[in-house]
Amino acid sequence: MLNTLLINLPLLIQDTAAVEGDMGMLWILLSGILVFFMQAGFTLVEAGMTRAKNAINIAMKNLLDISVGSITYWLVGYSLMYGDTSNGYFFWGGLFQGEGADLFFQTMFAATAATIVSGAIAGRTKFETYAIFTLVMTAIIYPISGGWQWQGSGWLTELGFIDFAGSSIVHGVGGFAALVGAIMVGPRIGKYFDGKVMPIPGHNMISATLGVFILWLGWYGFNGGSKLAWGGDNATGASTVVLVTNLAAAAGAMGGLLTTWIYLGKPNIAHTLNGALAGLVSITAGCGNMTAGGAVMAGLIGGIIVVFSIELIEKKLKVDDAIGAVSVHGVCGFWGTIVIGLWGVDGADGIGLFNGGGGAQFIAQLIGAIAYMVWAMVMSFIVFAALKYTLGLRVTEEEELGGLDISEHGQIAYPGKRARE
Amino acid sequence: MLNTLLINLPLLIQDTAAVEGDMGMLWILLSGILVFFMQAGFTLVEAGMTRAKNAINIAMKNLLDISVGSITYWLVGYSLMYGDTSNGYFFWGGLFQGEGADLFFQTMFAATAATIVSGAIAGRTKFETYAIFTLVMTAIIYPISGGWQWQGSGWLTELGFIDFAGSSIVHGVGGFAALVGAIMVGPRIGKYFDGKVMPIPGHNMISATLGVFILWLGWYGFNGGSKLAWGGDNATGASTVVLVTNLAAAAGAMGGLLTTWIYLGKPNIAHTLNGALAGLVSITAGCGNMTAGGAVMAGLIGGIIVVFSIELIEKKLKVDDAIGAVSVHGVCGFWGTIVIGLWGVDGADGIGLFNGGGGAQFIAQLIGAIAYMVWAMVMSFIVFAALKYTLGLRVTEEEELGGLDISEHGQIAYPGKRARE
Amino acid sequence: MLNTLLINLPLLIQDTAAVEGDMGMLWILLSGILVFFMQAGFTLVEAGMTRAKNAINIAMKNLLDISVGSITYWLVGYSLMYGDTSNGYFFWGGLFQGEGADLFFQTMFAATAATIVSGAIAGRTKFETYAIFTLVMTAIIYPISGGWQWQGSGWLTELGFIDFAGSSIVHGVGGFAALVGAIMVGPRIGKYFDGKVMPIPGHNMISATLGVFILWLGWYGFNGGSKLAWGGDNATGASTVVLVTNLAAAAGAMGGLLTTWIYLGKPNIAHTLNGALAGLVSITAGCGNMTAGGAVMAGLIGGIIVVFSIELIEKKLKVDDAIGAVSVHGVCGFWGTIVIGLWGVDGADGIGLFNGGGGAQFIAQLIGAIAYMVWAMVMSFIVFAALKYTLGLRVTEEEELGGLDISEHGQIAYPGKRARE
Repeated sequence: MLNTLLINLPLLIQDTAAVEGDMGMLWILLSGILVFFMQAGFTLVEAGMTRAKNAINIAMKNLLDISVGSITYWLVGYSLMYGDTSNGYFFWGGLFQGEGADLFFQTMFAATAATIVSGAIAGRTKFETYAIFTLVMTAIIYPISGGWQWQGSGWLTELGFIDFAGSSIVHGVGGFAALVGAIMVGPRIGKYFDGKVMPIPGHNMISATLGVFILWLGWYGFNGGSKLAWGGDNATGASTVVLVTNLAAAAGAMGGLLTTWIYLGKPNIAHTLNGALAGLVSITAGCGNMTAGGAVMAGLIGGIIVVFSIELIEKKLKVDDAIGAVSVHGVCGFWGTIVIGLWGVDGADGIGLFNGGGGAQFIAQLIGAIAYMVWAMVMSFIVFAALKYTLGLRVTEEEELGGLDISEHGQIAYPGKRARE
Repeated sequence: MLNTLLINLPLLIQDTAAVEGDMGMLWILLSGILVFFMQAGFTLVEAGMTRAKNAINIAMKNLLDISVGSITYWLVGYSLMYGDTSNGYFFWGGLFQGEGADLFFQTMFAATAATIVSGAIAGRTKFETYAIFTLVMTAIIYPISGGWQWQGSGWLTELGFIDFAGSSIVHGVGGFAALVGAIMVGPRIGKYFDGKVMPIPGHNMISATLGVFILWLGWYGFNGGSKLAWGGDNATGASTVVLVTNLAAAAGAMGGLLTTWIYLGKPNIAHTLNGALAGLVSITAGCGNMTAGGAVMAGLIGGIIVVFSIELIEKKLKVDDAIGAVSVHGVCGFWGTIVIGLWGVDGADGIGLFNGGGGAQFIAQLIGAIAYMVWAMVMSFIVFAALKYTLGLRVTEEEELGGLDISEHGQIAYPGKRARE
Repeated sequence: MLNTLLINLPLLIQDTAAVEGDMGMLWILLSGILVFFMQAGFTLVEAGMTRAKNAINIAMKNLLDISVGSITYWLVGYSLMYGDTSNGYFFWGGLFQGEGADLFFQTMFAATAATIVSGAIAGRTKFETYAIFTLVMTAIIYPISGGWQWQGSGWLTELGFIDFAGSSIVHGVGGFAALVGAIMVGPRIGKYFDGKVMPIPGHNMISATLGVFILWLGWYGFNGGSKLAWGGDNATGASTVVLVTNLAAAAGAMGGLLTTWIYLGKPNIAHTLNGALAGLVSITAGCGNMTAGGAVMAGLIGGIIVVFSIELIEKKLKVDDAIGAVSVHGVCGFWGTIVIGLWGVDGADGIGLFNGGGGAQFIAQLIGAIAYMVWAMVMSFIVFAALKYTLGLRVTEEEELGGLDISEHGQIAYPGKRARE
């Protein structure tokens, strides 16, 4: 019997570790499921905030993101991001790497990076062009730069850069690619007329609201699941991540709401929705290194930034970003990355500022945020330029005016919604 | 080696307890995530069951509930509800109490209590007025009375009162505050005309249906998560809670459907949807103390009650509750609280009636249900009265006729949804 | 102290097993919650893909499925499916069997089988007729044949038949019952006119898209939860199930998209959505016995099949299946069942083809798939025939033209959605 004891003890200890591993896998898988649902959220936000005549096209682009992304990321993306062979900038581990909950979870992040672009260039971009961009985004652009930090031995990891769940790695990359796309595709017909900026309102704000609620929901998995573990400190840590994510979203929504109330005279729903998303993007990098108070401040400022950023991009830069994706994901992704250097803490328990002062960390954050911005802009410029001189980026003027649903898909989204129809 | 054994054994035992704690935290966090999603459900139900011209206003109020609620409940609400300093009626533990999964989960309940009010007073209430009400609701009204039972040493706990997940604590408080709000704000223009009650139909019953499905989904977390643990008896216990919650919802939907089929001649969707919600509210207090059969009866009766309660409030009391929130949450919350005294069981395993007979328990349930009703009505009367004589409760007649989306937010929800737009 | 050790060791070992049991229960419960949400997905797909005048009727049928299904399956269905008394074809264990997470999870499958039928016969079927069909489906038809395989000692289990999560058991049964229903109820007025097939477009493709995303989401629970355990090999196994489910869905969507792009000239959203669902149905039986590559192939082929199957059924067989449910669930359910015999592997780790060659397995799969098809068709024929000669199957021509929302429910789904209304 004593023998049995002696033999079993290591097994028992191992069992406890195994159980923690199993719980971690459950949390990662469930988080991945939540992140998947964000595709539905993006569809509703993008479709709701743009015209009805392009709604099917938006839906098709989002279906494409998750479908193409799931396959390419499994084929090569995961390997380019997490492969063992590494020089700090490029990674590889062979075709068809990754498995189970981990591959599933990471796939959803790749699809998210792609979908951010679809909203910005809505209403005038050829479907086949977008399809190829999505393929390159999920297979190559996002994975390579993602490895810089998340592979574990990339150059940004070495630099001490922090991006817990992807303010820069996912949202920055998506958002700045969207900026390049919006510039290169050009504004929708009628957006800039006689020197003035014309509003092109969305067609369903309730749809957009549901979309934001779904994104907010999915973000708990996006940020919380990035803990990649559950059990002991990881359980309380992941819980805290979810808590501060929610606080930042709430503060971001209030930031957008109050800014428009003061600045535009009335609380505006589009900006409140974008404010919530801005709050979420703003806490995505720092959700593992932020006190609750710090998260509220990061989100609130994100929600204020997004209102003015949208104005600036639309009115000063004359870039037609149809739903504000560049501001929400790009600008606030940048903000969310550098705020860690301002009031991030060493551990979510909020013990204090980073050892050695915020300065060094701030520089690391700045370098990383700029690196992702530049990478996304250069790579997407190359892809969109190649597409421009081959397939072409835009539909014809007539097709655009008639709507992409008809020109690209031969259908309309709402064929007669009256009761008798 | 024997020494290693002797040293490690307590650790191993502790590990098992720690694992159960970790599993409990996972369940609470996931439940909180489900409850968060209920905000989307409330938005869709409230918007779908009212006019299109007020849809943005509904969405903004729900965004406000979760945003303001998340911040105020973290700031003071949690402390007022769960603080250690207690006289049985009021609690306090300092600012910024609560953390992690527990604070996250509890926050979602506060936001739910607030959102119940928004539907009842839809279509005529000023946005700024509602904003302040929500702030007071999530910061003060809901937390103080919530502590009476859930803090653990409150006067209702001492009394033996049972309200597992909040039929009275959340839904009763929200529902009866909604009643006071609806009375004080007054009916919508055109609701009562020449002595007759005019129907003001909702504008999107599919949206309302999706909302109810989302609420039903979220309620599994609302009730199941209130077990606040997972592992051993708690795992089977929480599973049973989810099972009986589903049965009560199903029975409630059937109650509403059949009642309208018999009573109105055709199965009516609005009443079926409200019946499902009524079933859910009716099992919320007793879901830890109800057999499956008892849950079906509680839900079925809730689904029947709600049809007649809506008629009574609208036609006899002449109170314009725009979506039936008072009946669903207030009246059925009351019913769900007292039914425990009728056929609740001591433990979800259904061993039998409460020791000492249902009578004593019934009295305790009645006292608690009345206490929450009176508290909610008095407190919301004070707040709405103060708002009435300062900011005012209603928009102008012209604004109401034009829709709150334009007057309060300067936007419309569906700017042209035809295919060519 | 050594005594304590000796006494505690079995407890410790037991604890680990108990923890694994608890984790399994959590996964089953959460999976059941995800599967529940599929009812919302079905509602949105079915309503979105049919006319606005029948949208309430669709919603009511789906509310009925889950409500009636929850009660009947608890009352008798679970016992007919999993009861211990068995002759291999029929099972029984008394009324009110099943409990907790297991009953909850299984209930959701019964409701799914029922809801598949509602879409196919949309737009012309009496509500009371459908109500009775749903009752029989969830109480008798689905449970009896489900037991053949999932009870554990049924004739198909003995045969070596594999249907991990129900390509045939749930989707085949629902899909072929839908075929019989669609034939017996007959086509909608105007579908076949002067020898030509007239398209009757859906009224909201964004709703349908959201529905598909919700179904895709729920399917992770549908397939993953069918592992019925979590921990160790079961944790990695269930994770792999979720991963391959996602890959098959993605491949199915691409199959539908590319097929229509090539075959119809433009990428069509209805077929892309049905392709995603087809991919999901195609992997449902084999998700525990498929490599990632095998899953992609199964899903891709499913997505191609569904396009031509819909054409065939609509144009050649002249059966008016309003949303393609027969093709998605019946035909692809059949395909998903037999593909295991083609390239299924023995264990999800992909060690190799089944021992003894695919031939024997293929025969077993074919027998099972045919058995479920025949059972579903015979049983639903009996029920629909009985209903035809008693209550009648169809509404009157006038009622159909006016819409079932008015004739069956006295309401319309969208009473004025303009901003000023």
